[in-house]
Amino acid sequence: MNAIKRFEKHVMFITEIDKLKSVIRNTLLLNNSKLENDAEHSWHISISAIILLEHADNQNLDVLKCIKMLLIHDLVEIDAGDTFAYDEKANQDKFEKESKATDRIFGILPDDQKIEFKNLWIEFEKNLSDEAKYAHAIDSFLPILHNYKTQGKQWKKFGVTPDKVLERNSFIKKGSITIWTYIEKIVEESTKSGFFTV
Amino acid sequence: MNAIKRFEKHVMFITEIDKLKSVIRNTLLLNNSKLENDAEHSWHISISAIILLEHADNQNLDVLKCIKMLLIHDLVEIDAGDTFAYDEKANQDKFEKESKATDRIFGILPDDQKIEFKNLWIEFEKNLSDEAKYAHAIDSFLPILHNYKTQGKQWKKFGVTPDKVLERNSFIKKGSITIWTYIEKIVEESTKSGFFTV
Repeated sequence: MNAIKRFEKHVMFITEIDKLKSVIRNTLLLNNSKLENDAEHSWHISISAIILLEHADNQNLDVLKCIKMLLIHDLVEIDAGDTFAYDEKANQDKFEKESKATDRIFGILPDDQKIEFKNLWIEFEKNLSDEAKYAHAIDSFLPILHNYKTQGKQWKKFGVTPDKVLERNSFIKKGSITIWTYIEKIVEESTKSGFFTV
Repeated sequence: MNAIKRFEKHVMFITEIDKLKSVIRNTLLLNNSKLENDAEHSWHISISAIILLEHADNQNLDVLKCIKMLLIHDLVEIDAGDTFAYDEKANQDKFEKESKATDRIFGILPDDQKIEFKNLWIEFEKNLSDEAKYAHAIDSFLPILHNYKTQGKQWKKFGVTPDKVLERNSFIKKGSITIWTYIEKIVEESTKSGFFTV
């Protein structure tokens, strides 16, 4: 494939993924003004992964790989929609639904990039490397931080309990023990402050 | 400074920059539903820089550096607001206003990171390296693509002419001649299709 043909595919992909800005999540912005969308979240976790890097358990990560995972991993939600972390039923067929979405969305790209992105996505979703574990830790830390800073409004709305938060996110300790320790602290504070309906 | 103290500063910074999601730009989403915000834009240009990398004039870029620049460079707009590319008056004191904003916003971070981010921001703004030139090309390409794909609605609203687009963005050719050639093509097509008020 020549450079012009490849460039055309790149533009098609860049155009398609604009839709991520309209995929709404269950996380409130910190100023309470609205629910966050996937593009905003993807930016926030990517920059946070850079900021928090010194707290990763493995200090020899391929950082660019982490950032790529964080920038691309939510694109599947253009087709599959956002799956709320605490919705157990919806999480059962999440991988299958999203895997199908990778075929269509990454399939817009030239084959080499399609394969690279699909492999990155699987590595992330299945937690197959230390890069995936750290990226996953950041991806799940931020919604918890948002809930804590917005007095648990969304936790209450969906009846999420402190135990659920700790159980559902325990994989974070595989990426960063510092982040996990902080999460235990803010979940305890949130419980004391009445940010959960228990 | 110990790790806990540093972590606290990191959380303060991550909390502060959530405000970027409420800084509104003059670019329409491709589905015409709303104006884009800076966080969405920062995500879109970061992922686009990865997708389009093979079209950079310099094929030996420090890609992580490019991505860092793209993820952080708009943070100054939390204080300084978005400056529309074609507003000549507002662009006169843009650097000064934004430089002041870097001191406050990056100043939330530990000193080593504050200095790294400030230097990255200056390198980007002043186009001091091939990384900055490529990042700049992507940052400016996307709003042009959005205007083209939304039939020039915002170009018309602000009375932007084809000459202005080419003149104001000519630095793009310093980062990627392929992207620049494509821009010349779509500006010509836009002119023919009546996407400008001329």
